[in-house]
Amino acid sequence: MIKVSVLYPNDAGNKFDIDYYCQKHIPMVQQKVGAACKRVEVEHGLAGGTPGSKPAYVAIGHLYFDSVPAFQAAFGPHAKEIMGDVPNYTNLQPIVQISEVKM
Amino acid sequence: MIKVSVLYPNDAGNKFDIDYYCQKHIPMVQQKVGAACKRVEVEHGLAGGTPGSKPAYVAIGHLYFDSVPAFQAAFGPHAKEIMGDVPNYTNLQPIVQISEVKM
Repeated sequence: MIKVSVLYPNDAGNKFDIDYYCQKHIPMVQQKVGAACKRVEVEHGLAGGTPGSKPAYVAIGHLYFDSVPAFQAAFGPHAKEIMGDVPNYTNLQPIVQISEVKM
Repeated sequence: MIKVSVLYPNDAGNKFDIDYYCQKHIPMVQQKVGAACKRVEVEHGLAGGTPGSKPAYVAIGHLYFDSVPAFQAAFGPHAKEIMGDVPNYTNLQPIVQISEVKM
C-alpha cells in the first residue's frame, strides 16, 4: 500500500479554506480517481512540537493506493482538472510525497 | 481526535533504520503512552511528486490521541525516555506537528 501525501506549508500570508478542501476538493478527487483510492485522510495543523509554536503545515491530505502505478493510472488522466481546483482553496504550493505504508 | 506527526527530513547524509523504528521504537512508544494512543501509522518515503524526485521526508510517524491534553498527559512522563531512543535509529532532527483530524 502506498500513501500520497500533499503537505501545505504554513507560509506567511497563506490562505487555506479547510472546509472547501474537505467538502469539495477531496470528494472531487475521490470521484475522479475512483475505487483505486482506498482511503483518504485530512488533518488541519494546530501546533508545532514545542509550546506556542506554529504547525509546519496548515493542512495535509493523504490518499492511499495499492501501488505507485495504480496511483499514476488513476490520477494521471485527471491531474489537470484536480490541480486546477487548488486555487479555489489555497494560495500555497504544496509538497507532494509518495510513501510506502509500513504500519 | 488529534494526530501527532513526526516527520524526518530527507537531509543529505541522513541515516534512518526503518526496521528498528517499526519493530522497536513505535512499539516502545505505544507501551509507554498506553491506551491514550488510539492508533499509529508509519510511512517510509519513496519519492516526491515529480518523476525521479526524492521524498521530502525519509519517514513519518503518526500517533492518534483523543485531544492535545490527552497526548500531553500520556507522553509527558515518558518524553525523556522516548526521545533518548531516537539516536538508536536516526541522526535526524524530526519536525513535530500536532493536527486536528478532519477526515
